[in-house]
Amino acid sequence: MSIPVSLNMNLRGIGQSATLAINERSKALRREGRKIYGLGLGQSPFPIPQSVVDSLKMHAHEKDYLHVQGLPALRTAVAEFHIKKDLADIHPDQVLIGPGSKELMFLLQLVFYGEIILPSPSWVSYHPQAHILGRPVRFIHTSFEDKWRLTADMLERHCAADNDNTKPRLIILNYPSNPDGGSYTADELEAIGFIARKNNIILLSDEIYGQLHFEGEHVSVSRYYPEGTIISSGLSKWCGAGGWRLGTFSFPPQLSWLREAMAAAASETYTSVSAPIQYAAIRAFKCGINIERYLWRVRKILKALATDTVRILQDGGVRVHMPDGAFYLFIDCTPFAEKLHARNIHNSMDMCEALLQETGVAILPGAAFNRPANEFTARLATVNFDGAKALAKCETIPLDTPLPDSFTKTYCKETLDACKRIVKWLHD
Amino acid sequence: MSIPVSLNMNLRGIGQSATLAINERSKALRREGRKIYGLGLGQSPFPIPQSVVDSLKMHAHEKDYLHVQGLPALRTAVAEFHIKKDLADIHPDQVLIGPGSKELMFLLQLVFYGEIILPSPSWVSYHPQAHILGRPVRFIHTSFEDKWRLTADMLERHCAADNDNTKPRLIILNYPSNPDGGSYTADELEAIGFIARKNNIILLSDEIYGQLHFEGEHVSVSRYYPEGTIISSGLSKWCGAGGWRLGTFSFPPQLSWLREAMAAAASETYTSVSAPIQYAAIRAFKCGINIERYLWRVRKILKALATDTVRILQDGGVRVHMPDGAFYLFIDCTPFAEKLHARNIHNSMDMCEALLQETGVAILPGAAFNRPANEFTARLATVNFDGAKALAKCETIPLDTPLPDSFTKTYCKETLDACKRIVKWLHD
Repeated sequence: MSIPVSLNMNLRGIGQSATLAINERSKALRREGRKIYGLGLGQSPFPIPQSVVDSLKMHAHEKDYLHVQGLPALRTAVAEFHIKKDLADIHPDQVLIGPGSKELMFLLQLVFYGEIILPSPSWVSYHPQAHILGRPVRFIHTSFEDKWRLTADMLERHCAADNDNTKPRLIILNYPSNPDGGSYTADELEAIGFIARKNNIILLSDEIYGQLHFEGEHVSVSRYYPEGTIISSGLSKWCGAGGWRLGTFSFPPQLSWLREAMAAAASETYTSVSAPIQYAAIRAFKCGINIERYLWRVRKILKALATDTVRILQDGGVRVHMPDGAFYLFIDCTPFAEKLHARNIHNSMDMCEALLQETGVAILPGAAFNRPANEFTARLATVNFDGAKALAKCETIPLDTPLPDSFTKTYCKETLDACKRIVKWLHD
Repeated sequence: MSIPVSLNMNLRGIGQSATLAINERSKALRREGRKIYGLGLGQSPFPIPQSVVDSLKMHAHEKDYLHVQGLPALRTAVAEFHIKKDLADIHPDQVLIGPGSKELMFLLQLVFYGEIILPSPSWVSYHPQAHILGRPVRFIHTSFEDKWRLTADMLERHCAADNDNTKPRLIILNYPSNPDGGSYTADELEAIGFIARKNNIILLSDEIYGQLHFEGEHVSVSRYYPEGTIISSGLSKWCGAGGWRLGTFSFPPQLSWLREAMAAAASETYTSVSAPIQYAAIRAFKCGINIERYLWRVRKILKALATDTVRILQDGGVRVHMPDGAFYLFIDCTPFAEKLHARNIHNSMDMCEALLQETGVAILPGAAFNRPANEFTARLATVNFDGAKALAKCETIPLDTPLPDSFTKTYCKETLDACKRIVKWLHD
C-alpha cells in the first residue's frame, strides 16, 4: 500500500511553465533525431560579457550567507544602474536581490493582499503564480490593432467598472514586452502612471528587457509614478546570464512595507542569492564601456533580425508588429483561420502542436500568454542562432555602421528559415 | 497620499528568520565597536574544498537555464552519493535540486496538503514556513531527559490521539540535529519508520548534517522506510558552501506525485538553480579521496570542540548533552531559573538578549526552535573560529592521530571563551 496523493488544489494539473516545457519537449524531439527550430524558450543567445564571467571566477571561493536583501555593494550598483539608465531615484536600501526576478514576482504575489491586474497578452508565469497562490487575477485584454499595448483609458475603465475605489490592486506592466517586443512612449507611460496614482494601484514595472530596447531609448514608468512603481530587472536578458539566476526589485520608500514583507518571506525561502553570483553581478550592473559596446552590438543584431523576420512574416500574410526591443515576435494568424479550421486546428495550442510536428518549428501558443484559446496567436523567440558567432562578426563592423543585408542570412539563417517554414505551412 | 498597506495576514509581524536576524544584529553591534562572540548563525566555519571552488571557476561561463529538476549529471552524482553514503536506492530522475534545501522545504509545504508534524525543538524555519503558507502544524514536544529525541512511541501516541487514521501527514526529522547535534541509532530510526509506515506519514528526513556525524556513521531512516522518505541534503554544511545556495531532495518513486508538483512550483518560482553552481556541485557530490580527507578533519575538529565546550558548560552547571555531529549545542539553563527570575529574566528571548548585551555572546533562544517561551533553553552554534586556519593546522596532524589538548585552546579560543562567559554570566 502506498501513501495516498494529497496535493494543494492550486497545484493540481499545473504542469511545468509553458516555456520550460517547450524547451524540454524540443530537446526530446532532437534526441529522436528530428530537426528542431527552437523558437520556444526566450533565452538570450549571446554569451555573458567576459568581464562578468571573469568576476565570477575571481569570487568563486565566496562561501558566506549574504544579507537577505542582497550584498550591499551589489544593491548600490543596482541603484546606480537605475539612477543612470532610468533616471529613477533608487536607494540601495530599497533594492532586493532574488534568484531570478520570477522568484521575486512570486514572493510579491505571496505577500501582497489584493487583486492582480494583468494585460493580455502577458508573460507566461505571472498568471500561474497567482493561481498557485490562490490570488484573484483580472485581465485587461488588448488587441493587435492597439499593438498589444495597455492604454491609460483601458486601465481607467477597468477601475471604474469595479464599483470599489479602495480595493488594493497590483498591475504588472512589462516593456519591451514579452511576448511581443513592443514598448511604450513616454507619454503613454505618463498617462498610465496618472491613472495608477489616481487609483492607488501598485505598479510592478517589469523592465528586464529595458537594456534591449533597439535604440537604447528605454523609458521607465517610474519617472512618472515613482512612489507606486517597483522596477524589476536582472541579469537574464541584457547580460545573457539567464542560467545564473539573479533578479532585482527596486522599491520606492513609500513601498518599504512590501519590500520588508518580501525580505521576511525571502529569509524563510531562498535565504539569499548565491554569493559568487552576487559578487560577479556587481561587475555587470556597473556597466562601463565594454558592456555598453556589447549592448550596442546585441541591439544591432536583434533589430536587424527583427526587421528581417517581420518582413518574411508580413510578406507571407501573417499579422505581426515590428517590435521596439527584446527578441520576440507575437504573430496573429487570423488571416489563415479558415484554412486552419479546415485542417481541424481550432486554437493556438493545436496550431503550435501541428506546426512543431509538421515543420519542426517550436513556438509558444498565445494561450500561454493569456490570450483567448480560440485565437490563432503565438510567440516566436528569435534566438535560435549562435549568438557568440554573430557577436564576434559584429565586432568587426564599426559600431555606427549598419549591418550588411547579408548579416542575418549568414548568422541567423535558421531563424529566417523557421519564419519561412511558418509562412509555407500556413499557406499549404 | 500614499498607497495603503495591504499584506497577506500570514506575513504580518513576521520578521526575518531568527538566525539571519541575529547575524545582522551582531554585525550591527560590531560596527558600533562592540566585541561580539558570534554563536548565532549556523554557518560552517570551514572553507569550501579547493577542488569544488576550482570547478566553479571552470564553469563560470555556463549561462543556460538548466532543467527545472536540476542538471542531469548533478542529479546522477547526488543519487550516487546517497546510494554510497546512505545505502539508499535513489534514481537520478527522483532528485530535485533547489537554491538551498530551505526553498525546497517551503515548496514541499506549499504543494502538500495535510498536517505538518514537527518535533520540538526543531530548526527555526520549518514552522514560519508553515505559518506563511497557512498550513496546520502540530508539535511533538521532546525533553532534555530524552536527549531531545522523538521516539516511535511519541509518534504513535500523537497519531492515535487524532481519531483520524486517514489524515494526510508530513513529519520533518532532522539528524544530526539543529539545534542540538544529536542523532538517532539505527534501531530508533527503524522504530520511527515502522510507525510512519503504519500511519502513512510522509517523512522528510533532513540530513543536511549527515556527513558531519563525528564518527562518520550517519544512518538514514530511508533504509527502514524507503517508500515514504524524502532525503534532504545540500552543500551548505558538510561542504562549507552555505552561501552558494544549493540543496537537494531525493524522493522514492512512490512519492513521484510530490516531486512532480514541486517541480511545477519550481518552474514558476526559482526556475532552476544557478548553472555554474550546479556544475561545481557535481564535483562536491562525487566526493573522492580529497573530500573524504577534508570531511575526516572537519569532523575531528568539530568533535574536539564539542567535547571541550560541553565540558565547560557542564562543569558550570549548565544542562547540555554531548552531540553526535554538526556544530550545535542546545543548552538548558533551568538550574539557574531562580537567579534569572531574580534578574527579571523570564524567558529564553530575554535571556539571550541580556546575554548579548552584557557579555557580547550571541546565541539563539530556545523559543526560536519551538520550545515553550518560559523555558531557559538556547542554541550555541560553535562556529566562531577561523575554520581555514584550524583546518590547515589539522592537515599537519596524521588523520588517525587525535588532536592535542592544546588544539581547541589555540584555534577555537573564542568559542571556548564564549562558553566560559555564558557560565560566568549565569553564576553572576
